Amino acid sequence: MTNTLEEAGDLPGRFSDGVGFVNGQYVPIAEAGVPILDWGFLRGDATYDVVSVWRGKFFRLDAHLERFYAGLETLQLDAGLKRGEIESVLAECARIGNLESAYVEMICTRGQPRSGSRDPRDCQNAFYAFAVPYVWIATLEKQESEGLHLAISDIERISATAVDPTVKNYHWLDFQRGLLDAYAQGAETVVLTRADGTLAEGPGFNIFVVNGDRVITPAAGVLQGITRRTAIEILERFGVEVQQEPLTLDVLHGGLEVFGTSTAGGVLPMTRIDGERVSDGTPGPLTMRVREAYWALHDDPAYVRAVADIPTPAGH
Amino acid sequence: MTNTLEEAGDLPGRFSDGVGFVNGQYVPIAEAGVPILDWGFLRGDATYDVVSVWRGKFFRLDAHLERFYAGLETLQLDAGLKRGEIESVLAECARIGNLESAYVEMICTRGQPRSGSRDPRDCQNAFYAFAVPYVWIATLEKQESEGLHLAISDIERISATAVDPTVKNYHWLDFQRGLLDAYAQGAETVVLTRADGTLAEGPGFNIFVVNGDRVITPAAGVLQGITRRTAIEILERFGVEVQQEPLTLDVLHGGLEVFGTSTAGGVLPMTRIDGERVSDGTPGPLTMRVREAYWALHDDPAYVRAVADIPTPAGH
Repeated sequence: MTNTLEEAGDLPGRFSDGVGFVNGQYVPIAEAGVPILDWGFLRGDATYDVVSVWRGKFFRLDAHLERFYAGLETLQLDAGLKRGEIESVLAECARIGNLESAYVEMICTRGQPRSGSRDPRDCQNAFYAFAVPYVWIATLEKQESEGLHLAISDIERISATAVDPTVKNYHWLDFQRGLLDAYAQGAETVVLTRADGTLAEGPGFNIFVVNGDRVITPAAGVLQGITRRTAIEILERFGVEVQQEPLTLDVLHGGLEVFGTSTAGGVLPMTRIDGERVSDGTPGPLTMRVREAYWALHDDPAYVRAVADIPTPAGH
Repeated sequence: MTNTLEEAGDLPGRFSDGVGFVNGQYVPIAEAGVPILDWGFLRGDATYDVVSVWRGKFFRLDAHLERFYAGLETLQLDAGLKRGEIESVLAECARIGNLESAYVEMICTRGQPRSGSRDPRDCQNAFYAFAVPYVWIATLEKQESEGLHLAISDIERISATAVDPTVKNYHWLDFQRGLLDAYAQGAETVVLTRADGTLAEGPGFNIFVVNGDRVITPAAGVLQGITRRTAIEILERFGVEVQQEPLTLDVLHGGLEVFGTSTAGGVLPMTRIDGERVSDGTPGPLTMRVREAYWALHDDPAYVRAVADIPTPAGH
């Protein structure tokens, strides 16, 4: 990395759409690219994580970095940066973009093989990062007023015996096809199913159902979301029992409330399922309490770190 | 597309490692990149095809283009180019690189969403292509002398109910993990299994087993490879019965010969499986006859088109 906020100069316009960190340089997001021969693209051989910045503060940065490093280990990837160095790069992306609230992604790809080699161990792994203005699966306004219309797809989520879903990855064609079907039906997002017919997860979110006085969320075959974990902690603090177990369609349809959890928008009320209203079709009371508590944690020093407090990357 | 071979000038050095077609421009392969925000990267939302050029001629270009357009239709993607235009771009990539024998890839990605949208239908799809010197899973010399050492992995190939394997895609993390395991065991490539325990396919190749006087190759849950199809046609011409049916481990281990088929190397003799020799451990006679016939087709006008005969892209 050779340039910094200072060196990038006072050009907020160029960077206001977002900032990429590519090949050790900070560049406007529109100029950030991945080499076409990088196996991160041609083979989806990469892991990533996304952390939010909300009003100048990273939320649960430690948890995201832990998951990212765990993914690197499973895939035998080396990002080539120490944890503090990654923190600095992520903070610098947000600072250069002057982004008060941002969606900040760290990526490690397999990179390109040596000429003639097909051996993944011969690749020079590559680290990328970017920050863009905060991304919403649904805006706060939409969350409060209407909630989301969810479709259930019988497209199967890629199984855990094929691709480990706890390693955050770019294998989303199942989700994308589910989304195309959902939009065609007038829904706004989708949850896929597992081979056993129980529900898995949606594109970028975990699913929760309020079932009597308990809350159920699937545990197997899904990403162990940080927002999911936060929602579970909040529910337990409220004294609500959370059962991490297979979620059937029957339980979903009988749910008093349904919500999703995602770094891209937090706690997302789902008020219609395949066109049918959940309860009275408005965001549910427990959902809204969890959501309020979730956003309150964004001021809790135990959960956040100010972007401004993270050192600028060491010049080299 | 705004530059051509002529405009690119007499700079074979810059292009000799390969040529990318990005954003309507021909660029040296090292400069060819995909925007980091393209959902083709961030969501693996793309399809592609690879056609070989051998001694100046495309092999079965029509079949590859048909499969590519079928994949576009399934994924609701629009490459924005007519078939003849894609042919011209692919030929131009090979010509600019002065590549007598090449691995030529065409790609269509979902592209980037409109700001704030999560709807795949809002994306501007993007077309990319590149040509690089011919890629070998195993060189001709290695094929003739030793053959390949194959490992069988119990990692499951992503199921057809999650991602349609007949649409060529970049969901390869299952293969990549299988390859890492294979190399760690001293093997050189890998075949993954299906949920029912039968064999699926390898990274970029289909698998065939000579079983008595028949040949067996799986049909379900695998890419319908063009080289696979060519091998089946050759075998049928030889009067050998080909059964497209589930392939068990028992049948594999009892096989007289085993081979793979791939655009990256043709017909690939597999002479060891998990360390055990197949028959006497040398490339089998039927395998070598199929292989010879495969390469002979590269001079058959019914199968090839000279790069030089394909028009230069219309200037615009």
